[in-house]
Amino acid sequence: MGDRRWPHPPDDPHPRRRRVPGSAGGRCRGAVAGPPAVGHSARLAYAAVQRIGAMRLHVAFLPSLVPTGRPGSERSQICLVVDVIRASSSLVTIVERGASRILIAGDVESARQAAASWDDVVLVGEEEGLAPAGFDYGNSPVELARAPLRGRPVVFVTTNGTAAIRAVKGAGAVLVAAMRNGAAVCREAWRESTARGDDLAVVCAGREGAFSIDDAYCAGYLADALLTYGSADLTDGAIAALRLYRSEPDALAIFSQSAAARNVVRLGLTNDVAYCAQRNVSEVVPRLGRELYLVEETVKARRLDASPRGTAK
Amino acid sequence: MGDRRWPHPPDDPHPRRRRVPGSAGGRCRGAVAGPPAVGHSARLAYAAVQRIGAMRLHVAFLPSLVPTGRPGSERSQICLVVDVIRASSSLVTIVERGASRILIAGDVESARQAAASWDDVVLVGEEEGLAPAGFDYGNSPVELARAPLRGRPVVFVTTNGTAAIRAVKGAGAVLVAAMRNGAAVCREAWRESTARGDDLAVVCAGREGAFSIDDAYCAGYLADALLTYGSADLTDGAIAALRLYRSEPDALAIFSQSAAARNVVRLGLTNDVAYCAQRNVSEVVPRLGRELYLVEETVKARRLDASPRGTAK
Repeated sequence: MGDRRWPHPPDDPHPRRRRVPGSAGGRCRGAVAGPPAVGHSARLAYAAVQRIGAMRLHVAFLPSLVPTGRPGSERSQICLVVDVIRASSSLVTIVERGASRILIAGDVESARQAAASWDDVVLVGEEEGLAPAGFDYGNSPVELARAPLRGRPVVFVTTNGTAAIRAVKGAGAVLVAAMRNGAAVCREAWRESTARGDDLAVVCAGREGAFSIDDAYCAGYLADALLTYGSADLTDGAIAALRLYRSEPDALAIFSQSAAARNVVRLGLTNDVAYCAQRNVSEVVPRLGRELYLVEETVKARRLDASPRGTAK
Repeated sequence: MGDRRWPHPPDDPHPRRRRVPGSAGGRCRGAVAGPPAVGHSARLAYAAVQRIGAMRLHVAFLPSLVPTGRPGSERSQICLVVDVIRASSSLVTIVERGASRILIAGDVESARQAAASWDDVVLVGEEEGLAPAGFDYGNSPVELARAPLRGRPVVFVTTNGTAAIRAVKGAGAVLVAAMRNGAAVCREAWRESTARGDDLAVVCAGREGAFSIDDAYCAGYLADALLTYGSADLTDGAIAALRLYRSEPDALAIFSQSAAARNVVRLGLTNDVAYCAQRNVSEVVPRLGRELYLVEETVKARRLDASPRGTAK
């Protein structure tokens, strides 16, 4: 796996301008363009070309589909974690609102425990879509965009998002990605992967172990944005995500059909879906270990240090 | 989940003719068309509409993503299993060649054991892409299309295909699907699902637990063919597979980029990929329990019946 880039045929005068046959909209790059329209033997001969040492761009439609590494490769991965409706959009918003740090938890009980040891803490999250008892806010990015969070620690509950971040926590870097911060997160991810010689993986949180088209579409958008910086070897997942993204320029048209959006609409939070579909309106990039921590890691760290950064009780 | 069909807006004079915005090629049906271009609130209001009792069409990109059933639903599922490069294409070919039955095995050793108790048996399968020692044929559908199989039992080894069939063996029906028998398998699946009131699931075998774009594309083609018979509620996976299929009319252009095809090309079996990309050239539908058996089930049955159908030693 991993060597999925078509070499440009030597007689192609415009290697960057060829497009994926049949795809509509979006930027189409040589990196995923098919071979020229010749016989299938010549076409397939391209497929046998090996590329050694090139950066790989993978899209994992679920956290369980993130490979631990390429066979025979020492590269680690820069991971962009996507739970676009709504956890990663909410996390971007929380950082924008100036929270001092975010502790993410997979369930309400561990969130409550973590919150107990912080001053002026804000409890955010959902249980079946709405804020659990005693929580300050639900997982509504529209609501969070008006919340007074400056300088305050936030404990944030997200089942699928936490599982995705946990699955890749050993990666070279873990960045939270959404439509809203797409350009910013891709710039940071590309810079870091080229500096470190790492591969790139966009990791979809999915929905209770099921494929989510909203996450897959966002992953395609991120892959497209990453490829504006250069070329990469694309896995099957990356090619499929790119095609999904390029099939429809209107993110909301895709999101509206997703199980995740339909659930949010049922709760009466229709505006959240449109908010999550907005692209490139934020420059923040929540990063694990910088703005963002898993609660279990924080608890571990606090056992070693009774008063981290002076913000604890 | 499961109620993913847009109702036609009441003022739409051509509900069947609307197309998915931005999609190119292929047949685009009302069942997956988005709502009209009005404000996002009106657009999302469509998403809240519930459909009770409609048939669901799901595409599972891996066997592990097949839901066991809809919550609160008594429907069972008609499953179309896809391992298009190359197992399901080979299975279609083996049935076409007139094999008396096919026993499928997940590994070479259990295939050899099963073969030992049949007269005139043909051993087919692969280990790292080629025929294992003592096997009559590798998993090359082009080669199998010339093989003398009439009236003979075939033991067939496929790791991913067997895992997929095992995962759904309790379904209402399990049919082997490929590009080659697409129209035939969809006709049989639709007829049966409407007669039984069952849901439909296209199940991709994938590749050693990873997403395969060739299987996903074939699944989109099958979903498109199924929707020529009527409408269904589409899951996120079904919508994404349809968009992938409709993004590119040339199956070979997609297949050539897949990890599976690249592996086959490396083995020098380039023609197999083109063979697997041909659509609607076969009328056979291999069905679990009719043409096709899992070896472990056969062994169980043979313990109860020492001479099944007079073909055993």
